Amino acid sequence: MPDLAIRNATRDDLSFIIGLIAHDTVLDLIDDPADAHGPEYLAAFEAITADPNQLLLVAEIDGTAVGTFQLTFTPGIFRRGAWRCSIEGVHVSPDHRNKRIGEKMTIWATDQARTRGCTMVQLTSNKKRTDAHRFYERLGFSRSHEGFKLYL
Amino acid sequence: MPDLAIRNATRDDLSFIIGLIAHDTVLDLIDDPADAHGPEYLAAFEAITADPNQLLLVAEIDGTAVGTFQLTFTPGIFRRGAWRCSIEGVHVSPDHRNKRIGEKMTIWATDQARTRGCTMVQLTSNKKRTDAHRFYERLGFSRSHEGFKLYL
Repeated sequence: MPDLAIRNATRDDLSFIIGLIAHDTVLDLIDDPADAHGPEYLAAFEAITADPNQLLLVAEIDGTAVGTFQLTFTPGIFRRGAWRCSIEGVHVSPDHRNKRIGEKMTIWATDQARTRGCTMVQLTSNKKRTDAHRFYERLGFSRSHEGFKLYL
Repeated sequence: MPDLAIRNATRDDLSFIIGLIAHDTVLDLIDDPADAHGPEYLAAFEAITADPNQLLLVAEIDGTAVGTFQLTFTPGIFRRGAWRCSIEGVHVSPDHRNKRIGEKMTIWATDQARTRGCTMVQLTSNKKRTDAHRFYERLGFSRSHEGFKLYL
């Protein structure tokens, strides 16, 4: 397959990103790509891009967007003041499944974390996404934690 | 029991915080409170306190520090540009267990998340900490995700 390119998202990618979220079969969300240029999404986009510890990313093949994810770099005290990298919002276009795009995005994230001096990469994955779990374990991740969420 | 007060950590709390981490029986870390004022921990402390989306907190009873935790507020695209609050580094002094201190810290975190407009609070807990899992579920958290970690 052609190379996967990964770049920072722009405002023009919001429709694509929100479209992936809206079509996710595990999430039960309230997102609508028709509102991509509305104030809620734009404010979030501005908050992400204004923060050097946040990266909102788009993966593309031959100029076509095929995936998205967000990285958050967080300083902490434990492990002698180590930084960690959290991966969130990982989505691949349904038309481009089974091309190891998620795997390549995760390896890219891990390389980025290493470059920034992080000593750990972490993510949570819905218990329903059993395919994703095998894939993260194949990449060396340890399924060591329970992930808890409380919606307010 | 007396009221629990929660305040921002100062440099003078680093020995206490690192001491709790170093004595944790689940973690296998490389932390040493004797180095609390060394460059690694001070750099991490400065990075946390310089970032308005990070809070490093200490809980105390009658002026005695009894617990610590860190909150990270993160903007995201999904859920119509919602912010989320992540709780990390939750530790309670062994001398003050079974006083519902962890519960009070978590409720405080949830209130803070709500005040800041977050729509979700999330955390991961090592699968060995089964007592903690019951306690988070009692507070309304859903154990919906697997937590993956990759150490670099």
